[in-house]
Amino acid sequence: MSKTWRIGVAGLGTVGGGLVKFLAEAPLYAPQGGRAEVVAVSARSRKRDFDISAMTWFDDAVALAASPDIDIFVELIGGSDGPAKAAVETALKHGKPVVTANKALIAVHGQALAALAEQNGAPLLFEAAVMGGVPAVKIVREALVGEDLVAIAGILNGTCNYILTEMEATGRSFADVLAEAQRLGYAEADPTTDVGGFDAAHKIVILAALAFGSAPNYADAEIEGIEKIELADIRLAHDLGYRIKLVASAEKIGDGVSVRVHPALAPLSHPLAQAGGALNALFIEGRRVGRIFVQGRGAGEGPTAAAVAADIADVMAGAVRPVFQKPGAQLVKAPAIEGEQRLTQAYVRLLVKDEPGVIAAVSETLAEENVSIDSFLQKPVHDAGGVPIVLTTHATPEPVLLRAIQRIGALPQVLESPRMIRIARV
Amino acid sequence: MSKTWRIGVAGLGTVGGGLVKFLAEAPLYAPQGGRAEVVAVSARSRKRDFDISAMTWFDDAVALAASPDIDIFVELIGGSDGPAKAAVETALKHGKPVVTANKALIAVHGQALAALAEQNGAPLLFEAAVMGGVPAVKIVREALVGEDLVAIAGILNGTCNYILTEMEATGRSFADVLAEAQRLGYAEADPTTDVGGFDAAHKIVILAALAFGSAPNYADAEIEGIEKIELADIRLAHDLGYRIKLVASAEKIGDGVSVRVHPALAPLSHPLAQAGGALNALFIEGRRVGRIFVQGRGAGEGPTAAAVAADIADVMAGAVRPVFQKPGAQLVKAPAIEGEQRLTQAYVRLLVKDEPGVIAAVSETLAEENVSIDSFLQKPVHDAGGVPIVLTTHATPEPVLLRAIQRIGALPQVLESPRMIRIARV
Repeated sequence: MSKTWRIGVAGLGTVGGGLVKFLAEAPLYAPQGGRAEVVAVSARSRKRDFDISAMTWFDDAVALAASPDIDIFVELIGGSDGPAKAAVETALKHGKPVVTANKALIAVHGQALAALAEQNGAPLLFEAAVMGGVPAVKIVREALVGEDLVAIAGILNGTCNYILTEMEATGRSFADVLAEAQRLGYAEADPTTDVGGFDAAHKIVILAALAFGSAPNYADAEIEGIEKIELADIRLAHDLGYRIKLVASAEKIGDGVSVRVHPALAPLSHPLAQAGGALNALFIEGRRVGRIFVQGRGAGEGPTAAAVAADIADVMAGAVRPVFQKPGAQLVKAPAIEGEQRLTQAYVRLLVKDEPGVIAAVSETLAEENVSIDSFLQKPVHDAGGVPIVLTTHATPEPVLLRAIQRIGALPQVLESPRMIRIARV
Repeated sequence: MSKTWRIGVAGLGTVGGGLVKFLAEAPLYAPQGGRAEVVAVSARSRKRDFDISAMTWFDDAVALAASPDIDIFVELIGGSDGPAKAAVETALKHGKPVVTANKALIAVHGQALAALAEQNGAPLLFEAAVMGGVPAVKIVREALVGEDLVAIAGILNGTCNYILTEMEATGRSFADVLAEAQRLGYAEADPTTDVGGFDAAHKIVILAALAFGSAPNYADAEIEGIEKIELADIRLAHDLGYRIKLVASAEKIGDGVSVRVHPALAPLSHPLAQAGGALNALFIEGRRVGRIFVQGRGAGEGPTAAAVAADIADVMAGAVRPVFQKPGAQLVKAPAIEGEQRLTQAYVRLLVKDEPGVIAAVSETLAEENVSIDSFLQKPVHDAGGVPIVLTTHATPEPVLLRAIQRIGALPQVLESPRMIRIARV
């Protein structure tokens, strides 16, 4: 049984190139004998800095996916629709195992693709879609099977984490650091997917589905990016003992599941606050196992290629599992959360007039809404434009909190829209 | 194909009881249909705080392992030899999948058992043997397959970590804290396996074999426990910016592999230093994936039962893999490391006479041996017994370092044997 596992790779960017090099350097052998070999590729251009002359070239990823000369289809094109989706569907319809790093595809179409994969008896694996070389998918999907998970939360986008870390370290603005990250190749020319929180949302949607046995439900995720984070917030948060991170979280509340991405303040001593630069980090909390924390490089050629290679090895090992926790045909979306069920603690920054009675007006408004203040910070400021004050609240039902903040924003003494950032529940 | 997977459990202590409860609360379904059910048990006594009346009782674990009425044998007896080994061997000879939490058994007899399992086509899984609910075995064995791992290092014994954390927090001695831990049930009546470093050694031996593709080699592991750690060391290390942890590590050096357990100083800001109480924590470093960090509860009913359950689910998923990275029959021990290949940085505590020239004598001795000093600390002490001084060295070939320290110990101004603790390479 010394068969070669013939791999077809669609997409030869950073990860695809890394995979070709990985398998050339570190051959993966199947337990029954035989090894994985990249025999066919497809990409936009044939120009590569590694040798693909021994591989069959396909102009069209869908044709590659349908080829009878491959045993496993690896999709590294990206994008939730278009050629990536068409190629993955084609491979699955032909009963071919699919390995993909495509978080958007799985977050948006995961349920239909799972059902298609299971109908055709073909595994569909996507370890590389989440946290690069850190096996978050495997941990939730396999190691915590049957466990009663209650929450997962973490830093799932390295670009945002790099930008926030640099802003704090160098005192530069979001726009400045982003421009530099783009020059260095750490951020895309169009950075929206990363800085808008959408990439992190794709990832947490996948983990939430695995953790809570529901269908991936990207459409209902609440997403807020880091574009509005100002240096002033980073500094004031630090004064209060926090660091601002883009936190992706999924949580069971009652019968529902909350899935969201937003900037959040984590206590400086917390592992999430300490994961700096482009690192990714994740907490997984289960009723029996307690809290598991994992951290590592969430992107890049080496880590992501290693994750794809691990999925190829899993295909060769021949395990049979549902793509998510239940068969795709049985997956349903978790019920949404009512706003009142969310207890949120917040940081609120205000710019107010430098005159008596302002703090009284703000605190009266909060008291009327039954929002209690946890801490309060006013620094002497020599800016004629107004006085910045910052407060943090105790946990409050989120709609109440938002209404109170809106009322504060309408006070005549308050000079600009209040800036609210949630405090991480960690 | 709705077959029941009939589980036989030998050993109904904390983990066995946890498993019975886990499977009752959270049934594990096989992907092909059917579920796992504990149908037979064996233990020292039938007295349990959970209901086993529906399960077939076996007085003898070996008879349970051989029973034609079970499909998976779960060994939770413990110990590297005796009934645990006999029962596991019996199950494997009968072609039955084995799931075990027995670190000593795998560390000592892993190679022979792997060969026996593979001959008989029976999986042998041991996730629960290392780090409880944190899937360290799965990460190294499956997620990092093919990756070029260079080092793993971490805190693998919760009892030692608890004792060291309590000593620092409360200022009590090792003996005091150990006695309390025994009263609270955190430490065994005979604590040697834990505090002597042997439990951590079993675990790092298993991870080293998986990481480096070699045979588990407990006999050659170097093991030092925490019994000699004094409060003075904990405090002085803290003054120098370190925390003392029991660190288990495995490292590729040249063609060899170093596997050892010893107390080590980790910088206070390092995640290993920050893993307090009974937590376990582990770094895994690969050439491509960089450093992965995992942390969680390494023992206890919930986490360990969840790990056993995950292995049962893996058996039901039907993956075929070698027990270690290569077939058991092909596993060889990694070559040992020559002492000179080890570069060690050390903390050295001396008790010296309160007279002029002492520091000159100590530093001359180090200079003669080519050991350079990294930091030096002498605190004013009002103890008539002598003056404690502490120094840390730069990285030095370990035999040179040990010889230099021995020479210092022989100086007439030095009043007691020098205390050397390595600084973690983290």
